[in-house]
Amino acid sequence: MKTTELRQELNSLTPLFRPQSVAIIGASENPFKPSGQPLVALLRAGFQGAIYPVNPRHNTLLNLPCHPSIEAVPGQVELAIIAVPARFTMEALYQCAAKGVKGIIIFTSGFAEVGTAGAAIQREITKLARETGMRICGPNCMGIFSSRNRLMANFAVIELPEKVLVPDFLGFISQSGGFGAAIYEVIREKGFGFSHFVSTGNEADLEFSHYLGYMAEDPHTRVIGGYLEGIKDGGKFMAAADLALDRGKPMLLIKAGRYEVAAKAAASHTGALVGSEKVYSAIFKQKGIIRVESLEEFNLMLSIIAGDRIPRGNRVAILATSGGSGVMLADKCAHHGLEVVRLQEETRADLAAMLPDFASTANPVDITSAIMTSPGLLEKCAERVIADPGVDMMIVAYWVAHGDRHNLDQMIRVGSGTSKPIFNLIWGPDQSVRDALNHMNEALIPAARETDFAIRALASLAQYNQFLQTRRQTADKPAPAPAGAREKAAALLQGLAPGARLTEYAAKQVLQAYGIPVTKEELAAGAEEAVAAAEKTGYPVALKIMSQEILHKTDTGGVILNVSTPGEVREGYRRLMENAGAHHPGARVEGVLVQEMLPAGTEMIVGIGKDPVFGATVLAGLGGIFVEALEDVALRVAPVSPRDAGEMLAELKGRKILDGLRGQPPADVEAVKDIIQRVSRLAEDFPGIAELDINPLFVFQRGKGACAADALIVMK
Amino acid sequence: MKTTELRQELNSLTPLFRPQSVAIIGASENPFKPSGQPLVALLRAGFQGAIYPVNPRHNTLLNLPCHPSIEAVPGQVELAIIAVPARFTMEALYQCAAKGVKGIIIFTSGFAEVGTAGAAIQREITKLARETGMRICGPNCMGIFSSRNRLMANFAVIELPEKVLVPDFLGFISQSGGFGAAIYEVIREKGFGFSHFVSTGNEADLEFSHYLGYMAEDPHTRVIGGYLEGIKDGGKFMAAADLALDRGKPMLLIKAGRYEVAAKAAASHTGALVGSEKVYSAIFKQKGIIRVESLEEFNLMLSIIAGDRIPRGNRVAILATSGGSGVMLADKCAHHGLEVVRLQEETRADLAAMLPDFASTANPVDITSAIMTSPGLLEKCAERVIADPGVDMMIVAYWVAHGDRHNLDQMIRVGSGTSKPIFNLIWGPDQSVRDALNHMNEALIPAARETDFAIRALASLAQYNQFLQTRRQTADKPAPAPAGAREKAAALLQGLAPGARLTEYAAKQVLQAYGIPVTKEELAAGAEEAVAAAEKTGYPVALKIMSQEILHKTDTGGVILNVSTPGEVREGYRRLMENAGAHHPGARVEGVLVQEMLPAGTEMIVGIGKDPVFGATVLAGLGGIFVEALEDVALRVAPVSPRDAGEMLAELKGRKILDGLRGQPPADVEAVKDIIQRVSRLAEDFPGIAELDINPLFVFQRGKGACAADALIVMK
Repeated sequence: MKTTELRQELNSLTPLFRPQSVAIIGASENPFKPSGQPLVALLRAGFQGAIYPVNPRHNTLLNLPCHPSIEAVPGQVELAIIAVPARFTMEALYQCAAKGVKGIIIFTSGFAEVGTAGAAIQREITKLARETGMRICGPNCMGIFSSRNRLMANFAVIELPEKVLVPDFLGFISQSGGFGAAIYEVIREKGFGFSHFVSTGNEADLEFSHYLGYMAEDPHTRVIGGYLEGIKDGGKFMAAADLALDRGKPMLLIKAGRYEVAAKAAASHTGALVGSEKVYSAIFKQKGIIRVESLEEFNLMLSIIAGDRIPRGNRVAILATSGGSGVMLADKCAHHGLEVVRLQEETRADLAAMLPDFASTANPVDITSAIMTSPGLLEKCAERVIADPGVDMMIVAYWVAHGDRHNLDQMIRVGSGTSKPIFNLIWGPDQSVRDALNHMNEALIPAARETDFAIRALASLAQYNQFLQTRRQTADKPAPAPAGAREKAAALLQGLAPGARLTEYAAKQVLQAYGIPVTKEELAAGAEEAVAAAEKTGYPVALKIMSQEILHKTDTGGVILNVSTPGEVREGYRRLMENAGAHHPGARVEGVLVQEMLPAGTEMIVGIGKDPVFGATVLAGLGGIFVEALEDVALRVAPVSPRDAGEMLAELKGRKILDGLRGQPPADVEAVKDIIQRVSRLAEDFPGIAELDINPLFVFQRGKGACAADALIVMK
Repeated sequence: MKTTELRQELNSLTPLFRPQSVAIIGASENPFKPSGQPLVALLRAGFQGAIYPVNPRHNTLLNLPCHPSIEAVPGQVELAIIAVPARFTMEALYQCAAKGVKGIIIFTSGFAEVGTAGAAIQREITKLARETGMRICGPNCMGIFSSRNRLMANFAVIELPEKVLVPDFLGFISQSGGFGAAIYEVIREKGFGFSHFVSTGNEADLEFSHYLGYMAEDPHTRVIGGYLEGIKDGGKFMAAADLALDRGKPMLLIKAGRYEVAAKAAASHTGALVGSEKVYSAIFKQKGIIRVESLEEFNLMLSIIAGDRIPRGNRVAILATSGGSGVMLADKCAHHGLEVVRLQEETRADLAAMLPDFASTANPVDITSAIMTSPGLLEKCAERVIADPGVDMMIVAYWVAHGDRHNLDQMIRVGSGTSKPIFNLIWGPDQSVRDALNHMNEALIPAARETDFAIRALASLAQYNQFLQTRRQTADKPAPAPAGAREKAAALLQGLAPGARLTEYAAKQVLQAYGIPVTKEELAAGAEEAVAAAEKTGYPVALKIMSQEILHKTDTGGVILNVSTPGEVREGYRRLMENAGAHHPGARVEGVLVQEMLPAGTEMIVGIGKDPVFGATVLAGLGGIFVEALEDVALRVAPVSPRDAGEMLAELKGRKILDGLRGQPPADVEAVKDIIQRVSRLAEDFPGIAELDINPLFVFQRGKGACAADALIVMK
């Protein structure tokens, strides 16, 4: 899906976030029930639009006229909340459609999450949405909150926050109502304002990606957060992520279901398909999505982003008041991929002049407990270190005594006076630390007590920034295929039945059309043709039986290597035919492939797979035992950009083999990256390819290229 | 070192922990200075013994007579604290020795941590300790605190805790004074009592392992904690750890210096050798030491241990009030190796009867927000699930509203009524959560807000318990070597110069003495001897040049494989001699090794290395490209028990190869485990072996054993 297409579709979401009028079908005035909460909250918050309670059992509710049906509502209704039992839901939807309602939020549960009967009704809901163009949030959801117009169309967020330090900051999308509400509460308490909050429910119509796209386009939202269990339409998700990237909005997602036991629980939770962890991990990398592992980390990332200070690189300086703490922090930074950088000599000299003799000016800097007794010392040291041009971010760890804000205020000044992020780790008695953290939070200075979350947050943001930089510098599409490639391949693939398999010979012709180097080879229909082909190719050659019906040709005597003379070719031809007859009686044999023998090279595999959510995937790995013993395969969703291809090779466990072991010259990784991109083009151009395996791909030394020695294509 | 030996030595530590009398050399009455803090604190806490301030500048201090020198103290002095400047320290020590003081704590800094001059004085201190038998803590340390006798011989712990929930619980040893003091503060605040606290400083005499051993033997200490940067004497550490294991005391250590940048910082911090992460990681596994990654995790582990409820296995049940939270928790449990177990059908049926329809009774159990409105529901569900015999531990996650202790009190009852650990994860507004955590803490019920630390703590303790179980069941020594092995090997190794290398032939004779299978082979001094040897061995054979001076025989034409006839043997012999002459002119050649050709097998390596701290190490890995590309080698410190050997093979990345890939039969891992243990015996018996490499070790299919195809020994 193109981003332009998605943007057009997103207009249809406006009635759900910025309606002029809201009807509540099944409304009550009980503030403890989902049916009563929106009415109470819309009134109390001062929603900027008309409110129409609908319930035949009341004439008025909270002093508003209550209407017997949606039809009876005098004016136009843009958004309707449905809070009636499941058995009345379809009827309510039909009435909304008749009334011309544009947006619907269904609180009601009892659909796909309870079994097949519920799933059938949910399909009706989806169908109605498609037919009428009504956009539906839910069912089985907690609804939507929007801060600007005070839209309390939900039963999770029922009060406007008292104090907002950063207004309209975060748009949050949750595939778990309960967990989402808990997150809302914790983030709100820190003073981070929500632009919107959506509980998506079962996603009968609108899905996670719609809301992601909407918040990307929304001019107020600065950061997008989410709790994600599974995506329905991979292409839409990628387009929405592209929109957020284009608008420079960080996406911070908690993705559940990494392990099978959790994925199963998630599937039963909302009836959603959770999908493969490997594919999600790939798409997050490809779209610069920051994967958040915990609420604590999420909180700390927001506090760094709120100050608009994302680390420009991964070089960290550590200041701590004890040697041991510095050592511990250095370990944790290294563990998360931050570089505990060497400080400049000038920086160290200046520190040495300020600090006592027993301090250490090497990074981690031991500023000693002298900062407790020397007023202004912490500020001077911190200012000096953050000014070091080799430093991208700083972690400062110190002890706080009860009621003492001296060091805190120094660090607020330093933190406000630099464009680099500074994280304060504050230790001490419980109450003192809490007071200190509140004090820092009020000043929007990142601070915490636990080290792990803070360092993970810094490391993830540094990585995100690096992603943005390379995104600006390199193409996000694979290199184009050669002219005519698509047409040539289409001719080879046309008319193939579902499940059809191409022989090695045919598969390689498809590869060749896309400019992927393959072995020199000819298909021979008889022994003498084989001899002629061998003479043309040059001895020695390999002989391979070609038949769509012979799958594992090596295992059944269908391959002969190192054939060196015309006599051996004739004898080989005869043996291949004999073996085919013995092992595969009745198989239709197309002939014998006469193929050049390749010089030694590193064996790799490159291929195409299919994911039910994200479509074509491209994989690359080291061949043979590495794949089998270590599952050492990197995967990306097509299209695979040049950057993605490079990252794929870099993340292989056995990548040292490509660098050249035991004095071997390094392998031609550029050729492999090129082939990965060509394979990606092929995958995109022909969604009908279910599987492609180049196995082995021989990779020669740098500058000498690579060559597909065997290949297989299976159609969907 | 034997544990009996260490136990004897530990008697000498009594004066440092339970002295009848304490002198403070350089005493003052300034409560803000290290020289004043012990005097003030000993008096205020009511130390149970005599206190003698020593300082020629005072007649009295805090109403106690102050003595001009240690000599002038009227009675005997068991323990002296030295708090004078560095230049007076040696003089004070000599006076202490003259007075017959048994234990010394040196606060003073300015020794090994500041450079070579300081290091020289520190060596003097060590020498004096060895000569006089005085035991010394420090220098550059914060001293010792002991709770029973109220020994405040330090300047970190200067007040007795007000409230102790679990008295005499934890003995803590810190190689960082500042970080140790911070840890003391945080743990104390939670109500966990310290039996002892030691800041070890530069360890001129007593080292980390002494204190570890002392606390293992101390009848009051129940758990031993520590902050560790580096060990000086590996054997002593292992003996001390064995004592703690024998006494059933968990060891929880924070080990810093995992990454190089941190290790360097640690080295400059106390001038200590930090050593190799790989070796520490091995020794922690071998001794069941629980590696703690953060203070938060340490805290939570203590709260689980304090209740005497260590998980018996790794099967966890999760109860959460929202589906999403359950999914998240399941992911984290799986990530840390806990099994989110399938609940029994009876358990699920009982839950289904209690919970609303939209709840999920599969693990993770979604108990829904119904627990907020149905009194007693949480308790009933939790009791039912923890009673499931397939469940070893439980995590219960719920929301707490301000001032509401209803659910908390239910969980206190459930937690107190079971022998299995239950961890409460409590979410909600900040103040409510804090109040709730305090409430749970008072009842000694494990509870936290952050999920990660809690799950790591549970997983680490489950693993510890598993270690204890296998320790009870299996030997902790390698299988014994064959009779006469040591004598035979000694004869082969005697008289070798330092750095001497044994040829393959000689090295294999050593292996053979220890019952390690080697290739059938004979050393031939001429072509005809070689032919005779080949006839005896059986064709085909391998021919290898044997010379102590030819290191990489394969690379310089010193190996010929698959030699099949007498003629080929003669020709091969000639070529080997020619190549030796060409590539290694002047090398003393001992002959040609005529060796059987082994059938195909999995190539492994097994060897001996040396660690400067822990001595002989044994390593095992998959051969060839796996070692080179992946550094896929497992390591243990000798002696390597049968359990250790099994764990070594299990932790190899390429272990699937041993299970049998592509329909291959599984390899004979029992034979490899046996060889690892024999190599361990050899390493222990001959500390003079600096390096041993069996490379390759051919491993055949299960039941067919393994065989050393090549070997090398280098002497220290």
